[in-house]
Amino acid sequence: MTHINDNFLRLSQNYLFTEVARRVQTYQARHPEADIIRLGIGDVTQPLCPAVVEAMHRAVDEMARKETFRGYGPEHGYEFLRRAIVEHDYAPLGVRLELDEVFINDGAKSDTGNIGDILGRDNLVCMTDPIYPVYMDANIMAGREVVSLPCTADNDFVPDLPGQPVDIIYLCYPNNPTGTTISRQELTRWVEYALANDALILYDAAYEAYIRDADVPHSIYEVPGAKRCAIEFRSYSKTAGFTGVRCGYTIVPRELEARTSTGERVGLNALWNRRQCTKFNGTSYIQQRAAEAIYSPEGRKQVEATIDYYLTNADIMRTSLRDLGFQVCGGRNAPYLWVQTPRGLSSWQFFDALLQGPHIVGTPGVGFGRCGEGYLRLTAFGDRADCLQAMQRLALNS
Amino acid sequence: MTHINDNFLRLSQNYLFTEVARRVQTYQARHPEADIIRLGIGDVTQPLCPAVVEAMHRAVDEMARKETFRGYGPEHGYEFLRRAIVEHDYAPLGVRLELDEVFINDGAKSDTGNIGDILGRDNLVCMTDPIYPVYMDANIMAGREVVSLPCTADNDFVPDLPGQPVDIIYLCYPNNPTGTTISRQELTRWVEYALANDALILYDAAYEAYIRDADVPHSIYEVPGAKRCAIEFRSYSKTAGFTGVRCGYTIVPRELEARTSTGERVGLNALWNRRQCTKFNGTSYIQQRAAEAIYSPEGRKQVEATIDYYLTNADIMRTSLRDLGFQVCGGRNAPYLWVQTPRGLSSWQFFDALLQGPHIVGTPGVGFGRCGEGYLRLTAFGDRADCLQAMQRLALNS
Repeated sequence: MTHINDNFLRLSQNYLFTEVARRVQTYQARHPEADIIRLGIGDVTQPLCPAVVEAMHRAVDEMARKETFRGYGPEHGYEFLRRAIVEHDYAPLGVRLELDEVFINDGAKSDTGNIGDILGRDNLVCMTDPIYPVYMDANIMAGREVVSLPCTADNDFVPDLPGQPVDIIYLCYPNNPTGTTISRQELTRWVEYALANDALILYDAAYEAYIRDADVPHSIYEVPGAKRCAIEFRSYSKTAGFTGVRCGYTIVPRELEARTSTGERVGLNALWNRRQCTKFNGTSYIQQRAAEAIYSPEGRKQVEATIDYYLTNADIMRTSLRDLGFQVCGGRNAPYLWVQTPRGLSSWQFFDALLQGPHIVGTPGVGFGRCGEGYLRLTAFGDRADCLQAMQRLALNS
Repeated sequence: MTHINDNFLRLSQNYLFTEVARRVQTYQARHPEADIIRLGIGDVTQPLCPAVVEAMHRAVDEMARKETFRGYGPEHGYEFLRRAIVEHDYAPLGVRLELDEVFINDGAKSDTGNIGDILGRDNLVCMTDPIYPVYMDANIMAGREVVSLPCTADNDFVPDLPGQPVDIIYLCYPNNPTGTTISRQELTRWVEYALANDALILYDAAYEAYIRDADVPHSIYEVPGAKRCAIEFRSYSKTAGFTGVRCGYTIVPRELEARTSTGERVGLNALWNRRQCTKFNGTSYIQQRAAEAIYSPEGRKQVEATIDYYLTNADIMRTSLRDLGFQVCGGRNAPYLWVQTPRGLSSWQFFDALLQGPHIVGTPGVGFGRCGEGYLRLTAFGDRADCLQAMQRLALNS
């Protein structure tokens, strides 16, 4: 008799973004005339840049000719892309990585979930609240216990170190959903904590490209010792508009170890490689050539221009919302704004009010955790015109 | 203190194809003049067909313009592709599927491994020996016990029903590695067994496109009742040369249920959807348009021509090997040939002899399981000229 994984029964029934989509669809069906502006789900709106488009056309043409056709690629990605990452994303930060410490994937969501495959079920996991729901749900599915670190206005959305010993720590900076960043000093405190407690940090740096201030760290490996305690996830989704292309990467340093149940130390790089070779067949050649193109001088300029465009959106929204009297954090060095609901409304009440009034879709903060109650997340990935109109509608509505 | 998943320690150290690659590299480095013909790893050699190439260029161009740009797609795939699958792959077989029973993925390897996420750890798993190593390794990683069903010359490589009650059954037809097919009558026996024992069949039909004989079933759902006991995996890798493109799909029927630990029945379709929404972000839009193109009249013709090409290779190899006195099965309705080693050589001995003598790379049968000892797998995915030359070299060598 086949049994399901009972841990699935512990998940909340609706995945946050599915519920948001359902409410928007229902409203639109009843009000077909409503011009709804979507600032909710973190999806980009600007097209792929010319350098990426050209690279993809070239790669497709290579696949069309027997002499240049590529079948299965290496499970951990082509060397040309791993080399570009090591040279362009890390060397300028003073971080030296070996090629086999880089694992190309089909986006950070897969790996932030799948990384649990190589970790024991009995690890105690800790993560901030609010948090990207994928970390939480993936750990519930695996049967792990999770403790939360509250991030509220009271602590300026900066989590305290855990009050009890934990084994695995998820950190995401620039943060989704609060749009906050972490200082080098704060990050150093976490690395020191992990090293002292033999804990593992899973560091999600998917929004690293949005950092503009020189004193905000781009990678956890900028902190000495981090290679001995951290895995870093990065994504091209928000860096180069790859949400529909699917490519990202994970860094698993060679020095990084964890223990077997009998206390022996085992390298995680080899374990993750084994996991990927068994359950993943590599990312499409075409996507990898696309990703490589953003490291060319033209690609870099084009990608930067789009990021600047979104950061300007963030700035406009942040200023407008504050002018209207909203409490807002985020939106600097980050594409997310974390807006306190007015008049003590709950997250979903404010979501419904914005949908039905000015026809703006946000994401209810409570969907990211209990401490997100009373907040709404807005994203800067919209079109400029939509972004301006949304702010205008809010001004008229308030 | 972070703990690893100890089950990884139970895995054999070397992944089969990694060891094959290592031996070939070592030999080539010592004998740079050797012209090695690779008939080992199941990778295709013919380029993508024109219909697919055109569709990919079009999709890339859509991604280059704001008006037609696509970001995140549905986690379970675009409707255009799911509709094409339902109408072209299943309707002609008399199998009716709903669109939400189809889940697009980045290749069958991911899902045949990841499907375990929704299943309890205590299920007893059974699979044939020899077998595609991914099924075995993914279940070892998850901590499940696996029992094997021997497939040898004695039973004509057709497994008997398990002698003990099992919960999950992996079947792969046309088979990798033996190249055998399953008759409708045999498959019916398995479906009846699964229904009678409340077991789940995981049916890998990745090589379905190679079936030419009318009496060989293409899908397990051709058997009445199979929707209540089977998940089917399909892939475009060998159907359309997508090994470097990455696209496939999984069918999880709505009627399919399994039990919680308290005995309640739960639908697997909803569980798998939840798993995918949490740990997968959809397959690239460009890949999905590529897959759709093979269902157009031109695409269909072009893809068929390539499959015919490989099947002719298989026929040539089968005939030549038999003429040389080898015991061979497979190679009809399947791209694999299962060759008994001569003179009682072990699989790896024969592998080394073929590498060092006629410079042909096969895959040692023992890498697929204990019952594969004394066999070597050859694939028909090579270039015609290589395939003919390999047979010629064998004739000279014997």
